[in-house]
Amino acid sequence: MCELGEWPDMNQEAIYHEAFGAYAFPLGGHRLKIRLRAKKGDLQSVAAVHEDRHPHRPGADLGIVPMEKVGSTMLHDIFEAVLHSKTRRVKYWFHLSDGTHSAWYGERGFAESRMMCPPFHYAYITEKDLFDVPDWIDDGIVYQIFPERFANGDPSNDPEDVQPWGGEPEGYNFFGGDLAGITKKLDYLSDLGINVIYMTPVFLSPSNHKYNTTDYYQIDPQFGTLEDLKELVRQAHALGIRVIMDAVFNHCGSDFFAFQDVIANGKKSPYWDWFFIEDEPVTMKPLPNYETFASYVYTMPKLNTAHPDVKAYLLDVARYWIEEADIDGWRLDVSNEVDAVFWREFRQVVKKAKPEALIIGEVWHHSGPWLQGDQYDSVMNYWFKEAMEDFFAKQTIGVEAFHALLVQTQTSYKDQANRGMFNLIDSHDTARFLTACQEKEERFKLAVLFQLAYPGMPMIYYGDEIGMKGATDPLCRGTFVWEEEGQNADILSWYKTCIRLRRTIPALRTGNYRLWYMNAPGNVYAIVRGTDSAQPAGVLLNNSALRQKLSIPVAWMEREELTDRLTGRTYPITDGQLHLEVEPYQGFVFV
Amino acid sequence: MCELGEWPDMNQEAIYHEAFGAYAFPLGGHRLKIRLRAKKGDLQSVAAVHEDRHPHRPGADLGIVPMEKVGSTMLHDIFEAVLHSKTRRVKYWFHLSDGTHSAWYGERGFAESRMMCPPFHYAYITEKDLFDVPDWIDDGIVYQIFPERFANGDPSNDPEDVQPWGGEPEGYNFFGGDLAGITKKLDYLSDLGINVIYMTPVFLSPSNHKYNTTDYYQIDPQFGTLEDLKELVRQAHALGIRVIMDAVFNHCGSDFFAFQDVIANGKKSPYWDWFFIEDEPVTMKPLPNYETFASYVYTMPKLNTAHPDVKAYLLDVARYWIEEADIDGWRLDVSNEVDAVFWREFRQVVKKAKPEALIIGEVWHHSGPWLQGDQYDSVMNYWFKEAMEDFFAKQTIGVEAFHALLVQTQTSYKDQANRGMFNLIDSHDTARFLTACQEKEERFKLAVLFQLAYPGMPMIYYGDEIGMKGATDPLCRGTFVWEEEGQNADILSWYKTCIRLRRTIPALRTGNYRLWYMNAPGNVYAIVRGTDSAQPAGVLLNNSALRQKLSIPVAWMEREELTDRLTGRTYPITDGQLHLEVEPYQGFVFV
Repeated sequence: MCELGEWPDMNQEAIYHEAFGAYAFPLGGHRLKIRLRAKKGDLQSVAAVHEDRHPHRPGADLGIVPMEKVGSTMLHDIFEAVLHSKTRRVKYWFHLSDGTHSAWYGERGFAESRMMCPPFHYAYITEKDLFDVPDWIDDGIVYQIFPERFANGDPSNDPEDVQPWGGEPEGYNFFGGDLAGITKKLDYLSDLGINVIYMTPVFLSPSNHKYNTTDYYQIDPQFGTLEDLKELVRQAHALGIRVIMDAVFNHCGSDFFAFQDVIANGKKSPYWDWFFIEDEPVTMKPLPNYETFASYVYTMPKLNTAHPDVKAYLLDVARYWIEEADIDGWRLDVSNEVDAVFWREFRQVVKKAKPEALIIGEVWHHSGPWLQGDQYDSVMNYWFKEAMEDFFAKQTIGVEAFHALLVQTQTSYKDQANRGMFNLIDSHDTARFLTACQEKEERFKLAVLFQLAYPGMPMIYYGDEIGMKGATDPLCRGTFVWEEEGQNADILSWYKTCIRLRRTIPALRTGNYRLWYMNAPGNVYAIVRGTDSAQPAGVLLNNSALRQKLSIPVAWMEREELTDRLTGRTYPITDGQLHLEVEPYQGFVFV
Repeated sequence: MCELGEWPDMNQEAIYHEAFGAYAFPLGGHRLKIRLRAKKGDLQSVAAVHEDRHPHRPGADLGIVPMEKVGSTMLHDIFEAVLHSKTRRVKYWFHLSDGTHSAWYGERGFAESRMMCPPFHYAYITEKDLFDVPDWIDDGIVYQIFPERFANGDPSNDPEDVQPWGGEPEGYNFFGGDLAGITKKLDYLSDLGINVIYMTPVFLSPSNHKYNTTDYYQIDPQFGTLEDLKELVRQAHALGIRVIMDAVFNHCGSDFFAFQDVIANGKKSPYWDWFFIEDEPVTMKPLPNYETFASYVYTMPKLNTAHPDVKAYLLDVARYWIEEADIDGWRLDVSNEVDAVFWREFRQVVKKAKPEALIIGEVWHHSGPWLQGDQYDSVMNYWFKEAMEDFFAKQTIGVEAFHALLVQTQTSYKDQANRGMFNLIDSHDTARFLTACQEKEERFKLAVLFQLAYPGMPMIYYGDEIGMKGATDPLCRGTFVWEEEGQNADILSWYKTCIRLRRTIPALRTGNYRLWYMNAPGNVYAIVRGTDSAQPAGVLLNNSALRQKLSIPVAWMEREELTDRLTGRTYPITDGQLHLEVEPYQGFVFV
């Protein structure tokens, strides 16, 4: 709380730390990661000093850990360290320095000596509260399928009004895609290189997207049978592919039995309280008199997940499909509008049914509240998608802002959540990325390369890999083009290449993420992904139409040359600098 | 993410907001409180602009709410507003202004127009996640009793080695206090004006403090019987006094049956996993080979609350005493070293057994993780105690730092948690406050006045009100002096006066807390507590040995005079200023 008179120009107001959330979290029973935020450029070095909260001999066993500046946003530098604690009870101070001045920072603010600086406390690293995520996510490459539009494997289950494959997708038309179609295309997917399928809903529902569920226990007959799902999962598993389904628990469809009962019986229905209905009679039009998904979508009544019966029903659904069909997890639709009490129990049920199951929420904004370890494993990373769109597709932000947004995203969450992010560039709810790129393929390909080199799980929206186009819903939900002449072979080949690089270079899967080089006028962005156990890899992108000659310092590798794994070309390092000429929108993966 | 070129001198780096935790929390199903942190003095005004996250007609129904600067720490101003949402789904922007420049602030940072500024999102105010606390806490005045030292109501249950009442408290001696003693003194407590008793542990235990529990289901015979406890609670309730007991669940005593079984049977014991033991044989000395409370306190083995049997056992204890003895809640010993999963279930069990029961954690540091609404109602407010000690007792900080610490405390938590704070100035674990004041009674009395006028629940440590002294444990645990000649009548009278003021002036119980006046050279501190429904009250303290003439602007009350409720004296307001002469260490409560 002192004034630090000797260090007047430090921006003390910008310093931020709390001993919880994304600023202090255990990685294991004896390892605590801490973060500190400071004004960009203000601090030259930060060290964390820690000891047991109840030391046997106070001061005799201090740990001193230099903190690493892991990245910068537009305004802030973010420092990180991992503290090792034998006793699990950690108190710690920050020692800040700009090279000339120094100060201590603790729970009560700044001080000029450690003894005058009450420390932060991470009271006890309890095993029960550890954020455990399945290890397989580190190798995950996700492929999102909208089943009605991916492949028609069984024409006998097509709806009566099915339209010819390849037609214009509309809000309410059908093309006959089904589970058998996915199963038949598993070899294709395996060859592509993905190892996780996320399917949008497959349960009985009158729509083509099936987000308005009629029966959570029945596969929609247009998509097939329970046996079809089981067969899909079996064959997928045989190929090393996991299957994630869509849990639409925020709302049901208006044909759901309980809602129909309410319509029929009003307040006398035992299901009246399963919903949020203003009064009798239940009115659907012109505006519904009950809560719905989004704005007055009367076909999607909001479910009262706080009601014990609703909760029990939906938790049983979650358990049932894991046990019955052996699926590998759930993606949670509109999950931020459902109570945390529900999700905590959901996690218990899911992880009990299958400890390695994955739980991915749909949250388009800051997802911290759901990513503390007690609810989801991670989320669909729409912050990533927005940054990708702005930088590569729309080119509305430059390399500095792009990096800032990514650092912001990475440092807003615990490491465990970052490992499991579904890193999408588009989805069934957005324009396809190639369309967002105004069909400029070189931008699209550069973005895909980056997506496949980024920490977390890349999520490929079905058809992106063959160059499918489409503005937002319903146009982004076109039927997959299976005839090779309709596919963009160059893009498909590019996807396979990028996926192969991710699968063969461990650093691209599990390495940390650090800025290597940034060139704002030329919009060149380069990062290094490194691990303790594997050699680092450098990814360099020229996100501009300029041909550029670059000389780039290479501090992360002591070598005489670097090899671009995309072209096989080798580039010399002389005087510590990599020299190369980059083509417009060219990308490199150096090892 | 823009550079705000037109407002170069704003300290953008200091701005902090997140759409969760203490920065965005619902007060009810349709009311969201939000906070914003900025560099002190940087912003002249802030407004929150909000709308439904899924608006039927976007932009057509914006709410614009001016934010109030509720206080300042040493470095930051804190702004607050309450947003009313019909739909429970809130997105919002901040509009910042210094009077000349303005900017928008949202999830991605700063922008010069709202349309370029992605908003923050509070996805949905779920009823299930609301932070509900018992309403009675708003009127609560707590009295902490250390039963072995408060009153001996039944000499027949005294331990064999009992020492004469009034002797020197030592770590291991006994004086015969018991439950019957408390019951007999209920009239005294009621006359004093308190309405909540918090008792340190009363279950079977060989120590005088009984924090090393032998049997969680048995009242220590030295303290009496189950019937004695029931009688105490019955008679307390009849006087409108609630009774809170101490839940020591982080650890048990080494005489606890399960630990004894482990000592006897080693790993063959079914209770081996109830503890954290390195290996056989269980070793207690010279250093225990199992986890304990604090540093190697071998008489207090740490309990493994993650073990289902341990959890079930302790949750049953929590339920049992509420149902059996009708107690009104639990104070949780060393609660920050126990897992959150346990406390979430604990809350369910306790609130089910008695919806109005209170749960108070013992956390000496930032308590945010436990005060989200799913675990405790509030905590013992040691941050408050430290500020009180530094300002009034030790006089190591001045009025600005004191105010800063209080604002920091208040704005670190949700309102619900602040309402239930146990605002202590001392406890069985610290020196008595009069001793901390070096026995300077005028400082002590001024602090007590402030404690009784502060938001939350004042907690009076037994005997403080009669001027008892004592350095930290064991000296702070002396026997209560019941002979009037041994009591400090002036202090007792002062307590009664301050308690009466709190009980008769609603603003002192439920009013908000705003700085009225601060005079650093003279160390004069004045705050206003106001409510919407009752008239505000001003509290003015001269925390110095100076006699001072003051002229203080009074903006919070349009009157020609103010009355000091402590003396009954009336002071004129002329030209908007209150004129008064203050004596050393004098305090005032103006209405």
